[in-house]
Formats: sequence, C-alpha cells, structure tokens
Amino acid sequence: SSSTTPIKATLFPGDGIGPEIAESVKQVFTAADVAIDWDEHYVSTEVDPRTNSFLTWESLQSVLDNKVGLKGPMATPIGKGHRSLNLTLRKELNLYANVRPCYSLPGYKTRYDDVDLITIRENTEGEYSGLEHQVVKGVVESIKIITRKASMRVAEYAFLYAKTHGRKKVSAIHKANIMQKTDGLFLQCCDEVAEKYPEIEYEKVVIDNCCMMLVKNPALFDVLVMPNLYGDIISDLCAGLVGGLGLTPSCNIGEDGIALAEAVHGSAPDIAGKNLANPTALLLSGVMMLRHLKLNKQAEQIHSAIINTIAEGKYRTADLGGTSTTTEFTKAICDHL
Amino acid sequence: SSSTTPIKATLFPGDGIGPEIAESVKQVFTAADVAIDWDEHYVSTEVDPRTNSFLTWESLQSVLDNKVGLKGPMATPIGKGHRSLNLTLRKELNLYANVRPCYSLPGYKTRYDDVDLITIRENTEGEYSGLEHQVVKGVVESIKIITRKASMRVAEYAFLYAKTHGRKKVSAIHKANIMQKTDGLFLQCCDEVAEKYPEIEYEKVVIDNCCMMLVKNPALFDVLVMPNLYGDIISDLCAGLVGGLGLTPSCNIGEDGIALAEAVHGSAPDIAGKNLANPTALLLSGVMMLRHLKLNKQAEQIHSAIINTIAEGKYRTADLGGTSTTTEFTKAICDHL
Ligand SMILES: CC(C)[C@H](C(=O)O)[C@@H](O)C(=O)O
Ligand SMILES: CC(C)[C@H](C(=O)O)[C@@H](O)C(=O)O
Repeated sequence: SSSTTPIKATLFPGDGIGPEIAESVKQVFTAADVAIDWDEHYVSTEVDPRTNSFLTWESLQSVLDNKVGLKGPMATPIGKGHRSLNLTLRKELNLYANVRPCYSLPGYKTRYDDVDLITIRENTEGEYSGLEHQVVKGVVESIKIITRKASMRVAEYAFLYAKTHGRKKVSAIHKANIMQKTDGLFLQCCDEVAEKYPEIEYEKVVIDNCCMMLVKNPALFDVLVMPNLYGDIISDLCAGLVGGLGLTPSCNIGEDGIALAEAVHGSAPDIAGKNLANPTALLLSGVMMLRHLKLNKQAEQIHSAIINTIAEGKYRTADLGGTSTTTEFTKAICDHL
Repeated sequence: SSSTTPIKATLFPGDGIGPEIAESVKQVFTAADVAIDWDEHYVSTEVDPRTNSFLTWESLQSVLDNKVGLKGPMATPIGKGHRSLNLTLRKELNLYANVRPCYSLPGYKTRYDDVDLITIRENTEGEYSGLEHQVVKGVVESIKIITRKASMRVAEYAFLYAKTHGRKKVSAIHKANIMQKTDGLFLQCCDEVAEKYPEIEYEKVVIDNCCMMLVKNPALFDVLVMPNLYGDIISDLCAGLVGGLGLTPSCNIGEDGIALAEAVHGSAPDIAGKNLANPTALLLSGVMMLRHLKLNKQAEQIHSAIINTIAEGKYRTADLGGTSTTTEFTKAICDHL
C-alpha cells in the first residue's frame, strides 16, 4: 500500500511491443497501489544510441542491486552472429532456474481443461553452452554440457518449489536412453534430491514420451524439471495447451534470492507501436514478481483482475479474438481491481 | 495375389509384445492374399541362446538382401551400457530418414480432428552420435554432429516425398537461434533443396514455437523435416494428437531403395504374452511397407480394414478402451477384408 516504502525493481521493457506492455504493467500496478519504484533500463537488440551498446553494465548491476526485476521480450535474430540478449541476461546474472507455470485461464477455452503444470528449466547450460565447431567443411558439432552443480541446484529448486507450493509430484524429463552420460548425470542429481523429499512423488520420463503424454493427458503431470533445451521445448508445448505464450508468465531464479520475471513470447515487431499487443504474459510475470516479494495480497488482486477481464470476454486483444487495444484492455483490468 | 511370386521381406518381431503383433500382421497379410515370404529373424534385447548374441550379421544381411522389412519393438534399457538395438539397426543399415505419418483415425476421437502430418526425421546423427565424455568429475558433455551429407539426403527425401505425395508445404524444424552452426547447416541444406521445388511452400520454424503451434493448431503444418532429436520429440507429440504410438506407423528409408517399416512404440513387457497388445501400429507400418513395394491395392485394402474395425468400435484392444484380445481384434480386421 502507499504507506510503505516503495521497493525498487528493475524494469527492462525490451524490444518491439515491450515498451507498450511494460506501460500496461506500470498502470495496473499503480492502480493496485503497489509500492514498486521501477528502475527502468533500455536493453534492446537495437544498439542504444546514447550508450552505443545493447546492454550496459549498469543494467546488469541494477538487477544485482535490486535483486528483483521484470523483463519484456528481446528479439533473437537468427544467424546475426551475436548472442540472444535473453540468454546473455540469464548467463550474466546466473539465473539458474526458469519457472513457467501453465494453467488454464477460466473463461478462455482451449482443447484442454484444468491444465495446471509447472515447468522448471535449467537455464544456464546444456545445448545452450555456445560451444560449436566446424570439424571439417560439411561436418559441424555442438557441445552440450551438463554439470553436477547446475543440475543439483535446479533439482533442489524444483523439489523445494513442489514442497512449498503444495505440489504432489516432480517428473524429471530426460533422454538418458541416448545421452547416458549427460542426461544420466542430470537424473542422478534429481534422484539424490528426490531422496530428501519422500513426501513428493518422483518419476523419470523420457522427453518424447513426455510430449506424447502431455498432449494426450496433461493431468498426468504436476511439476516438471529438466535440462535447458527440453525446458525450452516443453514449456512452449505446455503454453500451447492453455493458449500460447501470450498468456503464460515465467520467472528466472538466481543465487542470493534474485528473481527476474520475464514474458517469454516474442517481440512481435509486426504489431509494435500499434497499441495492439496483449500484455497478459508480462502482467502475469509481474504477479510472479510480486509473489516473490511476498506482496501476496496485491499479487492476488491483480491476478484476479486479469483473469476476470479475460473471462468476462468484453475486452480482449486481437490475439484472443477480441478487438480491444492494449490500453483498453489495460483499463478494463484496472477497473476490475 | 497368390498367382505372383512372393516377395521376400525381413521380419524382426522384436521384444515383449513384438511376437504377438507380428503374428497379427502375418495373419492379416495372409487373409489379404499378400504374396510376402517372411524372412523372420530373432533380434532382441535378450541375448539369443542359440547364437549368443543380440543381433547377428545374418539378420542385418537379410535386410540388405531383401531391401524391405518390418520391425517390431525392441527394448532400450536405460544405463545398461549397451546401445539401443533400434539405433544399431538404423546406423548399421544406414537408414537415413524416418517417415512417420500421423493422421486422425476416423472413429477414434481425440481432442484433434483432421490431423494429417508427416514428420521426416534425420535418423543417423545429431544428438544420437554416441559421443559423450566426462570432462572432469561433475562435468560431462555430449556431442551433436550435423553433416551436410546427412542433412542434404533427408532434405531431398522430404521434398521428394512432398512432391510425390501431393503435399503442399515442408517445414524445416530447428533451433538455429541457439545452435547456429549445427542447426544452421541443417537449415542451409533445406534452403538449397527447397530452391529446386518452387511448387512446394517452404518455411523454417523454431522447435519450441513448432511444438506450441502443433498443440494449438496442427493444421498449420503438413510435412515436417528435422534433425534426429527434434524428430524423436515431434513425432511422438504428433502421435499424441491422434491417440499415441499404438496407432501410428513409421518407415525407415535407406540408400539403394531399402525400407524398414517399424512400430515405434515400446515393447510393453507388462502385457507381453497376454494376448492384450494392440497390433495397429505394426499393421499400419506393414501397410507402409506394402506401399513402398507398390502393392497399393492390397495396402489400401488392409488399411481400410484396420480403420473400419477401429471406427466400428466393436472390437478394440484395452489401450483403446475396449476388451478385445489381440487375436479377436486381428480376426475382426481379417473379417473386414
Ligand atoms: C529466444 C530464445 C533464445 C529463447 C530460448 O531458447 O531460451 C526463448 O525461446 C525462451 O524460451 O526464452
Ligand atoms: C527407443 C529410443 C532409443 C528411440 C529413439 O530415441 O529414437 C525411440 O524413441 C524412437 O523414436 O524410435
């Protein structure tokens, strides 16, 4: 409430539609009387003319200082020779776990009802090592790295998450029948951690089978923990079950209690600046940030206002079949508060 | 028909339920008067006491000689130190493309209608290189290999398949925003081949986005071509859309016109020998084998009999919610011929 000292939080609006949806979050947070003092930084795939860089040291330091932040989409150009800023942030800030809840939004119908999944993705290594090499012309290799350190901490995080969020089961997703050493190490870490949580059901599921079962019956799963690339794939699949990345939040977890919430959809350059973007994923990511800050009352208020606005159906952006602008949709959420 | 010289085809019944479902195929083929002379070989994850081996040279040679075969499931034990026989066959026989059609079966309802997808998977390299290495204790690496040779031939196969099967579009699935060199080479090969097929629409889709779109709207896709691991994942996802691996066939394509059709589901040891297995995937794989042999009339007869039996719903195995045994279901198909 307005009587408490505001909490400083970093804000990276990002590329494309990023600034518009970030504006929506600011408005909704203000309307909900959330005492956040946004420390806004320009981080973009386009070089900032003022600093002549994509990402400044000050921007990284802001997250390290504030320990909490919210991030919009940043474009990842294919084959442009520089690394995705999304990944740079994850690596530089040592954001080791990416938590993506996927749940059916009441009132927004898809083929699936009552989806309620949490994917927890290792966020720093695996196929994302950046190690690639042309052996000879026409023969190239990429190196996937799995470490005990990164596997243990994401496994620990997943089981702790399950326990503290009243979840019943953790499924470790892998392809250890093919990658016996790398995925084998990942599983071994999950096995070790699982032993410390006898009250949480634990299973190991091969990724191909997991995908088949997810589309057949997502209720078979609860919390899923996995190496980086599988997490990338499965979290998008799960998002698809409930309507897509425009509706699903995420939060990156780092050491020392750092949390950077993130909308993981694209920057949608085609509709950027047109007041057409759906801010839901960034808003729900903002809600995850508030829960991380233990501002639970305001988190739930905002969450309900978003859900109710979508469920009511009167104000929806074009991607959800409506005709509302970003600002109209945002105002409707504020009115629901 | 019975007046033609029988065509010799290799049969690997495989592990678990393999022998039972292979028996079903033999019966249906006989009932349909298909002139196949099965050259049956014992290839199994259990060592053959007669030869003291899993896989003999004679079994491999049989496929090379006959150039056509049908394969049941073989178990892939995790962490048993020996490589999956499924993969050994693909590598030793140089089966470079794995074709998996996924289509809605009339009369078998899932959440999706009118699915009609073809996944074409590179079958010899990628994450399946078998190259893994412990760098130091707690740090392991797996090496993914992509070659121009393997990428070109699977891309060629995919576009030729699209053209000869009246398909409109080929989507190349990748993660070149992360693996710029390996997946980049794969895409470059697809680009090159695509140029030779101006009549076929061509697009590149990042694997995470592809999975999201497949569960939201599979009709966006037609033929999908991709590196090995993505093919493993996406083909299972697609199978899930239409009911699972028990209902979807596959065929492995090699050099010199070799084709080894394959049921890619598991060996289901829990129900093995109990006359409960669903032979549909192996039967439909047999149909793919017949089409490969240009025995189109009999292929369509058998295909219709399978589809009609399932659609009628009177005889279904337990996995499809029925109470029929394998032999009852098989007899029902024969009666439909
Ligand atoms: C944009 C891309 C590099 C990124 C990833 O692969 O992790 C995205 O898909 C995500 O999931 O955040
Ligand atoms: C059993 C396993 C090794 C195999 C694979 O990963 O290719 C299977 O999933 C398949 O798709 O045929």
